[in-house]
Amino acid sequence: MNNKKLAIVGATGVVGQTILKVLEEKNLPIEEYVFFASKRSAGTTLKFMDYIYPVKELTENSFNEYNFDFAIFSAGASTAQKYAPLATTTNCIVIDNSSAFRMEQNIPLVVPEVNSNALNTNSKIIANPNCSTIQAVVALKPLHDNFKIKRIVYSTYQAVSGAGSKGIHDLENGIQNYINNSNYELEKFNYPIFNNCIPHIDTFLDNGYTKEEEKMINETHKILNDYSISITATTVRVPVFNCHCEAINIEFEKEFELNNVINLLKKSPGITVIDDINENKYAIPTIVSGSNNVYVSRIRRDFSVKNGLNLWVVADNIRKGAATNAVQILEALLNK
Amino acid sequence: MNNKKLAIVGATGVVGQTILKVLEEKNLPIEEYVFFASKRSAGTTLKFMDYIYPVKELTENSFNEYNFDFAIFSAGASTAQKYAPLATTTNCIVIDNSSAFRMEQNIPLVVPEVNSNALNTNSKIIANPNCSTIQAVVALKPLHDNFKIKRIVYSTYQAVSGAGSKGIHDLENGIQNYINNSNYELEKFNYPIFNNCIPHIDTFLDNGYTKEEEKMINETHKILNDYSISITATTVRVPVFNCHCEAINIEFEKEFELNNVINLLKKSPGITVIDDINENKYAIPTIVSGSNNVYVSRIRRDFSVKNGLNLWVVADNIRKGAATNAVQILEALLNK
Repeated sequence: MNNKKLAIVGATGVVGQTILKVLEEKNLPIEEYVFFASKRSAGTTLKFMDYIYPVKELTENSFNEYNFDFAIFSAGASTAQKYAPLATTTNCIVIDNSSAFRMEQNIPLVVPEVNSNALNTNSKIIANPNCSTIQAVVALKPLHDNFKIKRIVYSTYQAVSGAGSKGIHDLENGIQNYINNSNYELEKFNYPIFNNCIPHIDTFLDNGYTKEEEKMINETHKILNDYSISITATTVRVPVFNCHCEAINIEFEKEFELNNVINLLKKSPGITVIDDINENKYAIPTIVSGSNNVYVSRIRRDFSVKNGLNLWVVADNIRKGAATNAVQILEALLNK
Repeated sequence: MNNKKLAIVGATGVVGQTILKVLEEKNLPIEEYVFFASKRSAGTTLKFMDYIYPVKELTENSFNEYNFDFAIFSAGASTAQKYAPLATTTNCIVIDNSSAFRMEQNIPLVVPEVNSNALNTNSKIIANPNCSTIQAVVALKPLHDNFKIKRIVYSTYQAVSGAGSKGIHDLENGIQNYINNSNYELEKFNYPIFNNCIPHIDTFLDNGYTKEEEKMINETHKILNDYSISITATTVRVPVFNCHCEAINIEFEKEFELNNVINLLKKSPGITVIDDINENKYAIPTIVSGSNNVYVSRIRRDFSVKNGLNLWVVADNIRKGAATNAVQILEALLNK
């Protein structure tokens, strides 16, 4: 069985590099790895499992040349749109991190702890959801199964790593500018993110929402496979390098006991509960960064509505929000 | 009429210093200013309106000695509890920034744009609300008057200046540590605030809420004078020096037109609307810092509930959230 070939497309990016780390940690039954990047990065090398690999340029022939079993794409929507269909013609199954295919009806959108059943399909493309959605649905799934969610209000606190290396540079450069008065030009955001909160992620839609907010709404529906849930969202970039935080306000159909909610979360896959107000323990980015799990804290009743609940949910947006989830999808496919 | 005596108690703190700035800008009909601080700061001097003033130690005799007409206290709850009643025995009217008296039934809790009518009282103590509540109610008041608020979900993004100079030091020192690896000890927060979001402001209550969250709920009720509004809150400290941001989700009793909401906000006192998604314009801390107004952005319908609305509200928590509001209360009292 240890004869699978895996392509990583976008291996040099922030998410691509973390995919490599997660693959090293998991040591899956893959025989051959090939790493692709854009023309700009091609020709460089990268270290993986103690070996040095060349970084190759992705071309229209790459998939024919290697006959991959799987490819993880982490190279943006336009690369995915161009190359994923080419890959599938060679019987390669594509796991795509971009938004290109997520809302297509016949393409599964998968968080393995939540809807691995969606992998029972003939689709050759599997979409990896948006980072802010992944951590939310991991926390919501066991609660939805037990108490049926009526409505969700999402408010996010999202790290700059979610905007890739340019977003990280903007925060780095803003800090340097604060300390050393060094000049810099913004690479990613419309305003300096250092010392700011920017209520604008991805582009604006006509209805006043951002695409990030729309993604959280639409992808939650698709992954939980329940379009009856009412959802709204406000997504905000904060000056944190890594880990998204989310204040999630939930209204359930059914009554619940708070202890039951806490126990359900504690025993659900992929979740770590940190919630001890007597010891001032709760999840924060610097504690969660580097972990593959979704952390849930501040679990408390919302007294303003019948069957209301507030949660504080933190996850490493590059790991569980992207790289880890993609590798977990691969793992689930290998186990099929 | 220009014969009033004003005491500033806590003149050397973060809020106290901004009270001085706001007083300089407003140039109210006050004849004599006296500045008090704790024993530690007493004996130093401060500059106000081009003069150098001594900082005096507040003692039990201070109010008898000077016969003040007004005192603005910005020195914490225990100082207020001890000295404000002493001040009132000398016919001095106290405007107190602390939480000491806010929820006392006969003490008005005032945001002048919202409930200056509450000043029609014989109370010798007027309470200045919590920073995060002030900016919220300024934005909510015109909407509540027109469409009647049923329910509010608050999620806050609060600056370190709200925690005073120790909070500011924690962020400063965290940045220095990041750049220079310099050691430091946390002065205020339980965790480093640099590169973090901390879902914990003020102490925890038995029901899992923080006091800051409880304040937002209780003070909103009292200021809007409507205890029928259902409210929940999650309050979070973010690595921003100054200006609190709030994602406010609102459900109204009555139907509304979005344009009507925007126009109401635009013409309401103390509000600046910045909301142009085509030009990527919205309020952020670095734009709002230094302003006395409350800024409202991201005004859009919440499609997940009947008559739902989302707002992004930003204000300088040291100015409108504390100093400016206190001086505006003084101004209203002077105009009575």
